[in-house]
Amino acid sequence: MPDHQLLSEIGLLNAQYARCIDNDELEAWPEFFSDPCVYSITSHDNYALKRPVGVIYADSQAMLKDRIASLRQANIYERQRYRHLLGMPLVQKSDGETVAAETAFAVYRIMRDGRTDVFATGRYVDKLRRKAGDRLSFAERIVVCDSSLFDTLLAIPL
Amino acid sequence: MPDHQLLSEIGLLNAQYARCIDNDELEAWPEFFSDPCVYSITSHDNYALKRPVGVIYADSQAMLKDRIASLRQANIYERQRYRHLLGMPLVQKSDGETVAAETAFAVYRIMRDGRTDVFATGRYVDKLRRKAGDRLSFAERIVVCDSSLFDTLLAIPL
Amino acid sequence: MPDHQLLSEIGLLNAQYARCIDNDELEAWPEFFSDPCVYSITSHDNYALKRPVGVIYADSQAMLKDRIASLRQANIYERQRYRHLLGMPLVQKSDGETVAAETAFAVYRIMRDGRTDVFATGRYVDKLRRKAGDRLSFAERIVVCDSSLFDTLLAIPL
Repeated sequence: MPDHQLLSEIGLLNAQYARCIDNDELEAWPEFFSDPCVYSITSHDNYALKRPVGVIYADSQAMLKDRIASLRQANIYERQRYRHLLGMPLVQKSDGETVAAETAFAVYRIMRDGRTDVFATGRYVDKLRRKAGDRLSFAERIVVCDSSLFDTLLAIPL
Repeated sequence: MPDHQLLSEIGLLNAQYARCIDNDELEAWPEFFSDPCVYSITSHDNYALKRPVGVIYADSQAMLKDRIASLRQANIYERQRYRHLLGMPLVQKSDGETVAAETAFAVYRIMRDGRTDVFATGRYVDKLRRKAGDRLSFAERIVVCDSSLFDTLLAIPL
Repeated sequence: MPDHQLLSEIGLLNAQYARCIDNDELEAWPEFFSDPCVYSITSHDNYALKRPVGVIYADSQAMLKDRIASLRQANIYERQRYRHLLGMPLVQKSDGETVAAETAFAVYRIMRDGRTDVFATGRYVDKLRRKAGDRLSFAERIVVCDSSLFDTLLAIPL
């Protein structure tokens, strides 16, 4: 019997995560993670072949914060906007303490001149844990992109 | 503690709203709103700068009905189809009477010749109120598009 | 009063269905259907005009399995990946035994060289029935694509 309450809870967390990025509230983004944590962006092919890590890797909130700081300095983010559309999460395993879940995503990029394109599609492969206040957080979020063709500007969180 | 029942209810309303437009049942579209109401389409930049109103503005069901009537006369709608994909709603505030919520969207446009493109992405910034029969309706729906580049044909409801 | 539990259950089934295709676990795909069943891909125009059937039609699990076998042989699937993003299901009718529901979809195609495009948008028009173990299955899934422009390679399940 699937736990619909848990599904709704993860769906909500995912929506808040997406909103944080899309509304350019990036300084709040590391808060979605446990500490230590794993955040990584990779491609389907690399993930399937169990190749070490992807184009982006961080294992603590401090590293996530650093990333945002560099982003702000590089001023890349301000030149474009993003929009995440997410699927319904699928729970693979839940043992009370850790939840393994997977969620499909599509991210659109909107350039300053207004052009919109599909920036990336893929799935989040997540391990979730409860933080203080019973709030779910990402102990691990592997962003598995369908395409191996990464934009060289890829510095924004997905 | 988030109210998952309310989230599901708003998600359902949003799905019905999208279906109404995408299935070309536009005459039923004004029924999703309270009367009076606010329906407006604007861009992220204008919304962030609190500029008065966007490209489209209506404040009553009568105005919404007028818009549909002109659309039908102009025959624009028949030349293309739309498809909405929506995120999970996020409730910002709920005081029993009014619910403030936000929902991400992507709208695809399918031309008569079959070409499909991403027509618009953005978020609905909503105030919801209960109508007779306890049904939720939009007292206010601000359609905040990510891009400022509006199609000059933009006459369809988003 | 909408049955939010049922909506969540159908949403989950749809997410599992999408994951099965997008993760290239096609051999498990026929299991989502009842036997006999109806699986058909058609266009909005053909569906609206009640024209017999669409480009693809199957009425048993055996036919669905055949389709996957040919796909594997033709080796088409391996050259590209897909990503489904789905809307929230809308229940039209539920009489305890059969549930009639509709769900919006967008499918992206990711080519081997990394290019991503919107492959198809549309809606699933479904009749669901419970299988052994109380699990929902598709007694009928009509894939109604918004566009009539079908890729000649259309052989993958949508």
